[in-house]
This record gives sequence, C-alpha cells and structure tokens, in this order.
Amino acid sequence: MLEALPKAVILVSGGMDSCVTAAIARETHRLAFVHASYGQRTERRERQAFDAIADFYGVSERLVVSLDYFKQIGGSALTDRGIGVPEDGAGTASGGPIPPTYVPFRNAHFLSVSVSWAEVLGATAVFIGAVAEDSSGYPDCRPEYYHAFEDLVRIGTRPETRIRIATPVIGMRKNEIVRRGLELGAPLDLSWSCYQGDDVACGVCDSCRLRLAAFAEAGTPDPIPYQDRVAR
Amino acid sequence: MLEALPKAVILVSGGMDSCVTAAIARETHRLAFVHASYGQRTERRERQAFDAIADFYGVSERLVVSLDYFKQIGGSALTDRGIGVPEDGAGTASGGPIPPTYVPFRNAHFLSVSVSWAEVLGATAVFIGAVAEDSSGYPDCRPEYYHAFEDLVRIGTRPETRIRIATPVIGMRKNEIVRRGLELGAPLDLSWSCYQGDDVACGVCDSCRLRLAAFAEAGTPDPIPYQDRVAR
Repeated sequence: MLEALPKAVILVSGGMDSCVTAAIARETHRLAFVHASYGQRTERRERQAFDAIADFYGVSERLVVSLDYFKQIGGSALTDRGIGVPEDGAGTASGGPIPPTYVPFRNAHFLSVSVSWAEVLGATAVFIGAVAEDSSGYPDCRPEYYHAFEDLVRIGTRPETRIRIATPVIGMRKNEIVRRGLELGAPLDLSWSCYQGDDVACGVCDSCRLRLAAFAEAGTPDPIPYQDRVAR
Repeated sequence: MLEALPKAVILVSGGMDSCVTAAIARETHRLAFVHASYGQRTERRERQAFDAIADFYGVSERLVVSLDYFKQIGGSALTDRGIGVPEDGAGTASGGPIPPTYVPFRNAHFLSVSVSWAEVLGATAVFIGAVAEDSSGYPDCRPEYYHAFEDLVRIGTRPETRIRIATPVIGMRKNEIVRRGLELGAPLDLSWSCYQGDDVACGVCDSCRLRLAAFAEAGTPDPIPYQDRVAR
C-alpha cells in the first residue's frame, strides 16, 4: 500500500514548520528527507532535530549536505558572528524591512539540492515549510517565489522530469501550523527553532518569539525547554 | 576609471566558454570570480585553470566553493565513477537525448552561489558561459532557463537588489566563441575543457570533441596538449 504512494523529498531544517510540513507530506507521499547545514549558529542542534524527526517517521532515505560556503559569503546574522541576532522583535513583522537574519538567496540553494536529488530518486515533489504571512519578511518565503522556482525546475531538468514545489504551510499563521501539527501527531517536541541556543532555546530571538506566540495562541504549551527568564 | 564600472560576478569553471565570457564581461565590469568544484572527475585540473585565468586578469575577489554533495546525489557520469563518460560523440548534438554527463539541475547550484555572493558584494550582474545551440543538449543551458532564473532572483532577493543573469555566449557557435576569445586576447591556453584528463586532454570526450571542432572551424590550433592518438 505505502509502496504505491509517490515519493517526495522534504526539506527538514528541524524547525517547527518543516516538522509539520513532513507530517502533511506523509499523508500522500513516501518520504525522503534532506537537511542542509550552512555554518549557521545552531547547526549542531538543528541536525540533531532533523535526525530525531527522521527517526520518528522511520525515514531511511536521508541526504545531509554541508553548505559551508555560506560562511565565506557572509552577509547574515545567522552565518556571520560579527552581525548580531536581533532580540527586539523588529524582524517578526511581515511588510517591514528585511531583517539581518536574512541569508542572501538561501532557499534557492536548499531547493536546488532537493531538486537535484529528487530528479535522481524519481520523486515527484519537493516539500518546503516556508511561511509567508506570519514570517520574518524574507523575500524567499513568498508564494510567487515558489511558483517561479517551479517554472525553473520545469525548464531546467530532463524533459520527462516533473517535480512540483509544494509549500503546504505557506498560507498558514504560525498558530495554525501548531494546531495542524498537533492534529497530525507531529513530533513538535523534537523540533528546534531558536537562532541562538544549542541546549535551551533563548526565547527572545525572532524565531523563538514567533514560536512562543504561536503555541500561546494555539492554547498549548511549547514542549521544548526555554531559558528561565522567558515568560511562556 | 575602472573603479566607476559596475561589479559583476563571473562563473569561471576554467573551460573555454567561461574564459571567453570573462573576457567579454571585463569590457564593461569590474570582475569577481566564482568557481565551484563538485566532485567532478577533473576537479583539480579545472581549479588550476580557474586560478590561472584569475591571475591573468588580476582578479583579487575570488570565491571557491566545494559542492561535494553532488557525489552523494550522483546520477551523472561526471560525478559517479560507475557511469562512463561517452566517447562516441552521441552527446554533442543539440536536440538529441540528454547525455549521461548531465548533472541534475547543476547550474541552479552554481547560479545560486553566484547570486548570494553578488547580493553581498553589491554586484549588478552574474555572468555564466552557457552555450545553447552548439552544446551537449543540457536542459539548463537554454536561454529560457536563464530568463526564468532572472525572474527568481528578482522575486527572491532584497527589494533593492538588481542582479542580471548575463549569458553573452549563449547564442554563439563554439567556433565563434574561439574567434571572440582570440579578438579579446582571452587566455585560451590557460583554459581546460576535458571531462576526463588531468594533464593531457583526452580528445575524445564530448567536451574535447566540441572544443577541437571549434578551433578547427576557427582555423587556429588549440593551444592545449592532447593525447597523441588525437587528430587535430
């Protein structure tokens, strides 16, 4: 029965959004998981979350790639220790300026890895947990970006290759993502979103703020550990 | 005077096409060179050609990235030793089937690296030496592919970022590229195109065949060394 489902490559950073995206993809596809580290501050912790989520879903096809060159390229608070991660919530509103945690054109790298692998595996979709409305205002998290990427894939792969770029949570608010994850039994306790912390989430970076607000609005406690100073 | 020119990022593989592309870009831009190795058979030799061409043009801004994960992804004769490089010329005609030297969705990775770096540098163009007509039939060497990529860049970078994807040799035949290179004084003797050889070009892989035919049609000898068995 499961063998008959089409295969999909899921980009799993280890965060909440990709965890729920995997849970959604699993309803209709056999899963292959890809994870990219890129010299970001919480690289080790995100990889641990990826492995835990892959184990949870029994995913044997895994591709872990190291895009260390992002450190050489720089230009982002996530990959350059000389640029601070904001803790003032300035990067949490859509429609505002691009925050310093923007990594230039990052998602194109992640999608390119996923599409190359999907073409070799014969997968028919690449799933990515991008969120448009309730995100940090990154230009590469908007629906039109993924439509443009799907066009690129159609033109730039073998004539017989058909790979859809699926963004099932792109139109959801963060609290809807939490609710959907709970409905589907997604292992949110294994996911990791913090931009700064390795063992205990800081609770004050943009990513933690969005996550904490989402759980609060969903009316359920976030199962991961936060620093004591954080009101939950 | 040179300071007033806009900056461009040039993808320099070390081959003839990228060498001439750099010579063309130099007419109107300050140059920053990017090179990607991806576990291909002639990785060492291509890197040597890149450095020699960069030295020739006095380019100080260089980014060399290692995309080793292409070996993990596989699916191509260039990165998988279990797949042979064709020597029958089957891959040298456009309009034919995609040859086994096709690396799935490869150029998207190269362009993504270049665009990320260009955005940090403030460069206004990325140059790539893709050739459509007289190439090996790769889907990611056609003009519409680069138009689609330019759309993606416009949508997926900062609102103020403007990066053109320039493909100055895409409409040329290979012998025109040789002639243009000679006109501009491009260091063709420092370039390397062979898919198989490290010290002496094999002369029989698709890439060598195209290059040798181009020089023959241009009426000038190819300055790089070939194996003795090759008729030039």
